[in-house]
Amino acid sequence: MKVLLVGASGAVGSAVAQALAGRHEVISAGRSHGDHCVDVTSDASVEALFAATGKVDAIVCATGGMFFGPLAAMRPTDFDIGLQGKLLGQVRVALFGQHALNDGGSITLTTGIDEPILNAVNASAVNAGVEGFVRAAAMELTRGLRINAVSPTVMTESLPVYGPYFPGFESVPSKGASTAAPCSACKSPPPVAHV
Amino acid sequence: MKVLLVGASGAVGSAVAQALAGRHEVISAGRSHGDHCVDVTSDASVEALFAATGKVDAIVCATGGMFFGPLAAMRPTDFDIGLQGKLLGQVRVALFGQHALNDGGSITLTTGIDEPILNAVNASAVNAGVEGFVRAAAMELTRGLRINAVSPTVMTESLPVYGPYFPGFESVPSKGASTAAPCSACKSPPPVAHV
Repeated sequence: MKVLLVGASGAVGSAVAQALAGRHEVISAGRSHGDHCVDVTSDASVEALFAATGKVDAIVCATGGMFFGPLAAMRPTDFDIGLQGKLLGQVRVALFGQHALNDGGSITLTTGIDEPILNAVNASAVNAGVEGFVRAAAMELTRGLRINAVSPTVMTESLPVYGPYFPGFESVPSKGASTAAPCSACKSPPPVAHV
Repeated sequence: MKVLLVGASGAVGSAVAQALAGRHEVISAGRSHGDHCVDVTSDASVEALFAATGKVDAIVCATGGMFFGPLAAMRPTDFDIGLQGKLLGQVRVALFGQHALNDGGSITLTTGIDEPILNAVNASAVNAGVEGFVRAAAMELTRGLRINAVSPTVMTESLPVYGPYFPGFESVPSKGASTAAPCSACKSPPPVAHV
Protein backbone atom coordinates (compact mmCIF):
# COMPACT_ATOMS: atom_id res chain seq x y z
CA MET A 1 0.00 0.00 0.00
CA LYS A 2 0.96 3.61 -0.52
CA VAL A 3 0.69 5.22 2.90
CA LEU A 4 0.93 8.93 3.64
CA LEU A 5 2.19 9.53 7.17
CA VAL A 6 1.68 13.08 8.43
CA GLY A 7 3.74 13.88 11.50
CA ALA A 8 6.31 11.25 10.68
CA SER A 9 9.07 12.62 12.88
CA GLY A 10 7.11 12.85 16.14
CA ALA A 11 7.15 10.26 18.91
CA VAL A 12 4.11 8.46 17.55
CA GLY A 13 4.83 9.08 13.89
CA SER A 14 8.36 7.75 14.00
CA ALA A 15 7.09 4.53 15.55
CA VAL A 16 4.45 4.23 12.87
CA ALA A 17 7.05 4.83 10.19
CA GLN A 18 9.22 2.07 11.59
CA ALA A 19 6.30 -0.33 11.86
CA LEU A 20 5.27 0.23 8.25
CA ALA A 21 8.73 0.34 6.69
CA GLY A 22 9.51 -2.62 4.47
CA ARG A 23 5.89 -3.67 4.16
CA HIS A 24 4.46 -0.56 2.54
CA GLU A 25 5.49 2.44 0.53
CA VAL A 26 5.56 5.17 3.17
CA ILE A 27 5.44 8.81 2.15
CA SER A 28 6.43 10.96 5.12
CA ALA A 29 5.31 14.52 5.75
CA GLY A 30 5.88 16.94 8.58
CA ARG A 31 6.42 20.53 9.48
CA SER A 32 10.12 20.41 8.75
CA HIS A 33 11.05 16.80 8.12
CA GLY A 34 10.07 14.13 5.64
CA ASP A 35 9.46 13.68 1.96
CA HIS A 36 7.09 16.63 2.02
CA CYS A 37 6.75 19.65 4.26
CA VAL A 38 3.24 20.40 5.39
CA ASP A 39 1.57 22.81 7.78
CA VAL A 40 -1.67 21.17 8.86
CA THR A 41 -3.07 24.53 9.96
CA SER A 42 -3.05 25.73 6.34
CA ASP A 43 -5.54 24.71 3.66
CA ALA A 44 -3.10 25.61 0.90
CA SER A 45 -0.32 23.56 2.45
CA VAL A 46 -2.45 20.43 2.88
CA GLU A 47 -3.91 20.77 -0.60
CA ALA A 48 -0.39 21.10 -1.99
CA LEU A 49 0.64 17.97 -0.11
CA PHE A 50 -2.07 15.86 -1.73
CA ALA A 51 -1.38 17.40 -5.12
CA ALA A 52 2.20 16.23 -4.70
CA THR A 53 1.44 12.74 -3.42
CA GLY A 54 -1.33 11.85 -5.83
CA LYS A 55 -3.67 9.04 -4.89
CA VAL A 56 -2.81 7.04 -1.76
CA ASP A 57 -4.25 3.97 -0.08
CA ALA A 58 -3.99 5.14 3.50
CA ILE A 59 -3.45 8.33 5.47
CA VAL A 60 -2.07 8.29 8.99
CA CYS A 61 -2.05 11.56 10.90
CA ALA A 62 -0.05 11.89 14.11
CA THR A 63 0.41 15.57 14.53
CA GLY A 64 -1.03 18.72 16.00
CA GLY A 65 -0.20 20.85 19.01
CA MET A 66 -2.21 21.31 22.19
CA PHE A 67 -2.04 23.57 25.22
CA PHE A 68 -1.16 22.32 28.66
CA GLY A 69 -1.72 24.53 31.67
CA PRO A 70 -4.02 25.19 34.60
CA LEU A 71 -7.67 26.05 33.99
CA ALA A 72 -7.56 28.98 36.38
CA ALA A 73 -5.09 30.90 34.23
CA MET A 74 -6.22 29.68 30.83
CA ARG A 75 -7.17 32.14 28.12
CA PRO A 76 -9.34 31.37 25.09
CA THR A 77 -6.32 31.84 22.84
CA ASP A 78 -4.56 29.08 24.79
CA PHE A 79 -7.51 26.76 24.29
CA ASP A 80 -7.64 27.58 20.59
CA ILE A 81 -4.12 26.18 20.15
CA GLY A 82 -5.45 22.64 20.35
CA LEU A 83 -8.57 23.45 18.34
CA GLN A 84 -6.51 24.81 15.44
CA GLY A 85 -3.67 22.30 15.90
CA LYS A 86 -4.55 18.76 16.82
CA LEU A 87 -8.30 18.98 16.14
CA LEU A 88 -8.80 21.10 13.03
CA GLY A 89 -5.31 20.18 11.82
CA GLN A 90 -6.20 16.51 11.69
CA VAL A 91 -9.73 17.21 10.43
CA ARG A 92 -8.21 19.29 7.62
CA VAL A 93 -6.04 16.35 6.58
CA ALA A 94 -9.11 14.11 6.63
CA LEU A 95 -11.32 16.56 4.70
CA PHE A 96 -8.84 17.00 1.87
CA GLY A 97 -7.55 13.46 2.22
CA GLN A 98 -10.91 11.80 1.59
CA HIS A 99 -10.66 12.93 -2.03
CA ALA A 100 -7.09 11.62 -2.42
CA LEU A 101 -7.82 8.07 -1.28
CA ASN A 102 -8.17 5.10 -3.57
CA ASP A 103 -11.34 3.02 -3.11
CA GLY A 104 -11.28 1.12 0.16
CA GLY A 105 -8.63 3.40 1.61
CA SER A 106 -8.36 4.45 5.22
CA ILE A 107 -7.75 7.50 7.37
CA THR A 108 -6.25 7.09 10.82
CA LEU A 109 -6.22 10.04 13.22
CA THR A 110 -4.57 10.25 16.64
CA THR A 111 -6.24 11.18 19.89
CA GLY A 112 -4.81 10.52 23.35
CA ILE A 113 -5.71 9.20 26.75
CA ASP A 114 -9.41 9.10 27.54
CA GLU A 115 -9.06 9.94 31.21
CA PRO A 116 -9.04 13.64 32.01
CA ILE A 117 -5.86 14.78 33.74
CA LEU A 118 -4.97 17.95 35.58
CA ASN A 119 -3.81 20.90 33.49
CA ALA A 120 -5.06 19.25 30.32
CA VAL A 121 -8.58 20.51 29.68
CA ASN A 122 -7.47 21.41 26.17
CA ALA A 123 -6.25 17.88 25.50
CA SER A 124 -9.41 16.38 26.95
CA ALA A 125 -11.61 18.51 24.72
CA VAL A 126 -9.48 18.10 21.61
CA ASN A 127 -9.15 14.33 21.89
CA ALA A 128 -12.89 13.98 22.51
CA GLY A 129 -13.53 16.26 19.55
CA VAL A 130 -11.38 14.13 17.24
CA GLU A 131 -13.29 11.05 18.35
CA GLY A 132 -16.63 12.79 17.81
CA PHE A 133 -15.56 13.77 14.31
CA VAL A 134 -14.48 10.24 13.48
CA ARG A 135 -17.72 8.68 14.76
CA ALA A 136 -19.81 10.88 12.49
CA ALA A 137 -17.46 10.96 9.51
CA ALA A 138 -17.34 7.17 9.36
CA MET A 139 -21.02 7.15 8.41
CA GLU A 140 -20.62 9.50 5.48
CA LEU A 141 -17.59 8.11 3.72
CA THR A 142 -18.27 6.33 0.43
CA ARG A 143 -16.31 3.98 -1.87
CA GLY A 144 -15.45 1.71 1.05
CA LEU A 145 -13.36 4.41 2.70
CA ARG A 146 -12.77 4.04 6.43
CA ILE A 147 -11.78 6.40 9.22
CA ASN A 148 -10.56 5.57 12.71
CA ALA A 149 -8.87 7.21 15.65
CA VAL A 150 -6.17 5.57 17.72
CA SER A 151 -5.48 6.52 21.29
CA PRO A 152 -1.94 5.93 22.47
CA THR A 153 -0.96 6.78 25.99
CA VAL A 154 2.05 8.98 26.71
CA MET A 155 5.16 7.88 24.83
CA THR A 156 8.26 7.01 26.84
CA GLU A 157 10.17 9.33 24.54
CA SER A 158 7.80 12.16 25.49
CA LEU A 159 8.26 11.78 29.25
CA PRO A 160 10.92 14.50 29.54
CA VAL A 161 8.34 17.00 28.28
CA TYR A 162 4.98 15.55 29.31
CA GLY A 163 5.83 13.18 32.15
CA PRO A 164 4.71 15.56 34.93
CA TYR A 165 1.21 15.67 33.38
CA PHE A 166 0.82 11.89 33.51
CA PRO A 167 1.56 10.76 37.06
CA GLY A 168 0.57 7.13 37.50
CA PHE A 169 0.33 6.45 33.78
CA GLU A 170 2.48 3.74 32.29
CA SER A 171 4.27 5.09 29.26
CA VAL A 172 4.72 3.14 26.06
CA PRO A 173 8.02 3.12 24.19
CA SER A 174 7.57 4.21 20.61
CA LYS A 175 10.16 1.61 19.63
CA GLY A 176 11.42 3.82 16.91
CA ALA A 177 13.37 6.96 16.31
CA SER A 178 12.71 9.21 13.40
CA THR A 179 14.85 8.50 10.42
CA ALA A 180 13.18 11.18 8.38
CA ALA A 181 15.61 13.49 6.71
CA PRO A 182 15.08 17.24 6.86
CA CYS A 183 12.89 18.34 4.00
CA SER A 184 14.92 19.99 1.32
CA ALA A 185 12.03 22.19 0.29
CA CYS A 186 11.76 24.23 3.43
CA LYS A 187 13.80 25.53 6.31
CA SER A 188 11.10 25.84 8.93
CA PRO A 189 11.93 25.29 12.60
CA PRO A 190 11.66 21.83 14.15
CA PRO A 191 8.18 20.68 15.16
CA VAL A 192 6.94 21.36 18.66
CA ALA A 193 6.67 18.39 20.93
CA HIS A 194 3.43 16.49 20.76
CA VAL A 195 1.78 13.81 22.83
CA MET B 1 -29.68 32.78 43.20
CA LYS B 2 -28.33 35.25 40.70
CA VAL B 3 -28.17 33.36 37.40
CA LEU B 4 -26.54 34.59 34.21
CA LEU B 5 -28.17 33.01 31.17
CA VAL B 6 -26.18 33.37 27.96
CA GLY B 7 -28.21 32.64 24.85
CA ALA B 8 -31.46 33.48 26.57
CA SER B 9 -33.49 34.00 23.42
CA GLY B 10 -32.72 30.70 21.71
CA ALA B 11 -34.91 27.62 21.77
CA VAL B 12 -33.10 26.15 24.76
CA GLY B 13 -32.35 29.43 26.46
CA SER B 14 -35.91 30.69 26.39
CA ALA B 15 -37.07 27.49 28.04
CA VAL B 16 -34.40 27.83 30.71
CA ALA B 17 -35.41 31.43 31.30
CA GLN B 18 -39.02 30.41 31.78
CA ALA B 19 -38.07 27.58 34.12
CA LEU B 20 -35.97 29.85 36.33
CA ALA B 21 -38.23 32.89 36.32
CA GLY B 22 -39.84 33.64 39.65
CA ARG B 23 -37.47 31.41 41.57
CA HIS B 24 -34.21 33.13 40.75
CA GLU B 25 -32.84 36.45 39.62
CA VAL B 26 -32.12 35.79 35.95
CA ILE B 27 -29.77 38.05 34.02
CA SER B 28 -30.20 37.40 30.32
CA ALA B 29 -27.55 37.90 27.66
CA GLY B 30 -27.45 37.25 23.96
CA ARG B 31 -26.17 38.46 20.65
CA SER B 32 -28.98 40.95 20.22
CA HIS B 33 -31.52 40.32 22.96
CA GLY B 34 -31.51 40.41 26.72
CA ASP B 35 -30.27 42.51 29.59
CA HIS B 36 -26.79 42.47 28.07
CA CYS B 37 -25.49 41.98 24.56
CA VAL B 38 -22.60 39.60 24.24
CA ASP B 39 -20.62 38.03 21.44
CA VAL B 40 -19.23 34.76 22.80
CA THR B 41 -16.60 34.69 20.05
CA SER B 42 -14.97 37.81 21.52
CA ASP B 43 -12.82 37.94 24.65
CA ALA B 44 -13.52 41.63 25.12
CA SER B 45 -17.26 41.14 24.83
CA VAL B 46 -17.39 38.30 27.37
CA GLU B 47 -15.09 40.15 29.77
CA ALA B 48 -17.33 43.21 29.47
CA LEU B 49 -20.36 41.05 30.23
CA PHE B 50 -18.93 39.82 33.51
CA ALA B 51 -17.70 43.29 34.40
CA ALA B 52 -21.31 44.43 33.99
CA THR B 53 -22.95 41.57 35.89
CA GLY B 54 -20.57 41.42 38.83
CA LYS B 55 -20.51 38.22 40.86
CA VAL B 56 -23.12 35.58 40.05
CA ASP B 57 -24.12 32.24 41.55
CA ALA B 58 -24.67 30.33 38.34
CA ILE B 59 -23.89 30.62 34.66
CA VAL B 60 -25.95 28.83 32.04
CA CYS B 61 -24.72 28.91 28.46
CA ALA B 62 -27.00 27.83 25.62
CA THR B 63 -25.47 29.39 22.59
CA GLY B 64 -23.01 28.92 19.77
CA GLY B 65 -23.33 28.17 16.10
CA MET B 66 -22.35 25.00 14.26
CA PHE B 67 -22.07 23.91 10.65
CA PHE B 68 -24.38 21.36 9.08
CA GLY B 69 -23.55 19.87 5.74
CA PRO B 70 -22.15 16.80 3.98
CA LEU B 71 -18.63 15.63 4.75
CA ALA B 72 -17.76 15.24 1.08
CA ALA B 73 -18.09 18.98 0.43
CA MET B 74 -16.95 20.27 3.80
CA ARG B 75 -14.11 22.77 4.03
CA PRO B 76 -11.99 23.41 7.12
CA THR B 77 -13.52 26.86 7.42
CA ASP B 78 -16.95 25.22 7.66
CA PHE B 79 -15.73 22.96 10.44
CA ASP B 80 -14.19 25.91 12.28
CA ILE B 81 -17.63 27.53 12.61
CA GLY B 82 -18.54 25.12 15.36
CA LEU B 83 -15.08 25.22 16.93
CA GLN B 84 -15.20 28.99 17.25
CA GLY B 85 -18.94 29.13 18.00
CA LYS B 86 -20.42 26.46 20.18
CA LEU B 87 -17.14 24.99 21.47
CA LEU B 88 -14.74 27.87 22.08
CA GLY B 89 -17.69 30.23 22.59
CA GLN B 90 -18.93 28.24 25.54
CA VAL B 91 -15.41 27.53 26.79
CA ARG B 92 -14.73 31.27 26.70
CA VAL B 93 -17.77 31.92 28.89
CA ALA B 94 -16.56 29.23 31.30
CA LEU B 95 -12.95 30.46 31.39
CA PHE B 96 -13.91 34.04 32.21
CA GLY B 97 -16.95 32.97 34.19
CA GLN B 98 -15.02 30.85 36.69
CA HIS B 99 -13.61 34.06 38.14
CA ALA B 100 -17.04 35.72 38.35
CA LEU B 101 -18.71 32.96 40.37
CA ASN B 102 -19.43 33.10 44.06
CA ASP B 103 -18.17 30.15 46.11
CA GLY B 104 -20.14 27.01 45.35
CA GLY B 105 -21.39 28.41 42.07
CA SER B 106 -22.04 26.42 38.93
CA ILE B 107 -21.44 26.56 35.19
CA THR B 108 -23.79 24.71 32.85
CA LEU B 109 -22.87 24.31 29.20
CA THR B 110 -24.98 22.85 26.40
CA THR B 111 -24.03 20.02 24.10
CA GLY B 112 -26.47 18.03 21.95
CA ILE B 113 -27.40 14.54 20.94
CA ASP B 114 -24.74 11.91 21.51
CA GLU B 115 -25.56 9.84 18.45
CA PRO B 116 -23.76 10.90 15.27
CA ILE B 117 -26.14 11.88 12.49
CA LEU B 118 -25.63 12.43 8.79
CA ASN B 119 -24.37 15.84 7.72
CA ALA B 120 -23.41 16.71 11.26
CA VAL B 121 -19.75 15.80 11.74
CA ASN B 122 -19.19 19.32 13.04
CA ALA B 123 -21.91 18.91 15.69
CA SER B 124 -20.61 15.50 16.68
CA ALA B 125 -17.09 16.84 17.19
CA VAL B 126 -18.16 20.04 18.90
CA ASN B 127 -20.55 18.38 21.33
CA ALA B 128 -17.95 15.75 22.21
CA GLY B 129 -15.40 18.50 22.66
CA VAL B 130 -17.63 20.41 25.08
CA GLU B 131 -18.10 17.23 27.08
CA GLY B 132 -14.35 16.55 27.09
CA PHE B 133 -13.72 20.06 28.35
CA VAL B 134 -16.27 19.71 31.12
CA ARG B 135 -14.89 16.35 32.29
CA ALA B 136 -11.42 17.78 32.74
CA ALA B 137 -12.42 21.24 33.97
CA ALA B 138 -14.55 19.75 36.74
CA MET B 139 -11.37 18.42 38.36
CA GLU B 140 -9.62 21.76 38.46
CA LEU B 141 -12.31 24.07 39.77
CA THR B 142 -11.82 25.27 43.34
CA ARG B 143 -14.04 26.96 45.98
CA GLY B 144 -16.75 24.35 45.48
CA LEU B 145 -17.38 25.48 41.92
CA ARG B 146 -19.07 22.98 39.63
CA ILE B 147 -19.35 22.54 35.89
CA ASN B 148 -21.71 20.35 33.90
CA ALA B 149 -22.96 19.90 30.38
CA VAL B 150 -26.56 19.17 29.48
CA SER B 151 -27.55 17.41 26.32
CA PRO B 152 -31.01 18.24 25.02
CA THR B 153 -32.30 16.62 21.88
CA VAL B 154 -33.68 18.70 19.03
CA MET B 155 -36.25 21.27 20.18
CA THR B 156 -39.71 21.13 18.65
CA GLU B 157 -39.33 24.83 17.95
CA SER B 158 -36.17 24.10 15.96
CA LEU B 159 -37.77 21.49 13.70
CA PRO B 160 -38.47 23.91 10.83
CA VAL B 161 -34.71 24.51 10.56
CA TYR B 162 -33.12 21.31 11.85
CA GLY B 163 -35.85 18.71 11.48
CA PRO B 164 -34.42 17.15 8.30
CA TYR B 165 -31.18 16.39 10.16
CA PHE B 166 -32.96 14.43 12.89
CA PRO B 167 -35.12 11.79 11.21
CA GLY B 168 -36.47 9.36 13.80
CA PHE B 169 -35.63 11.59 16.75
CA GLU B 170 -38.40 12.65 19.07
CA SER B 171 -38.26 16.39 19.56
CA VAL B 172 -38.81 18.08 22.90
CA PRO B 173 -40.93 21.21 23.21
CA SER B 174 -39.03 24.01 24.88
CA LYS B 175 -42.23 24.99 26.65
CA GLY B 176 -41.31 28.61 26.45
CA ALA B 177 -40.95 31.42 24.03
CA SER B 178 -38.39 34.13 24.46
CA THR B 179 -39.65 37.13 26.36
CA ALA B 180 -36.31 38.84 26.18
CA ALA B 181 -36.52 42.36 24.92
CA PRO B 182 -34.08 43.61 22.30
CA CYS B 183 -30.97 44.95 23.93
CA SER B 184 -30.96 48.71 23.87
CA ALA B 185 -27.20 48.84 23.76
CA CYS B 186 -26.71 47.32 20.36
CA LYS B 187 -28.41 46.93 17.04
CA SER B 188 -26.82 43.70 15.92
CA PRO B 189 -28.78 41.27 13.75
CA PRO B 190 -30.87 38.52 15.33
CA PRO B 191 -29.02 35.40 16.48
CA VAL B 192 -28.61 32.53 14.08
CA ALA B 193 -30.63 29.46 14.80
CA HIS B 194 -29.05 26.96 17.12
CA VAL B 195 -29.75 23.39 18.14
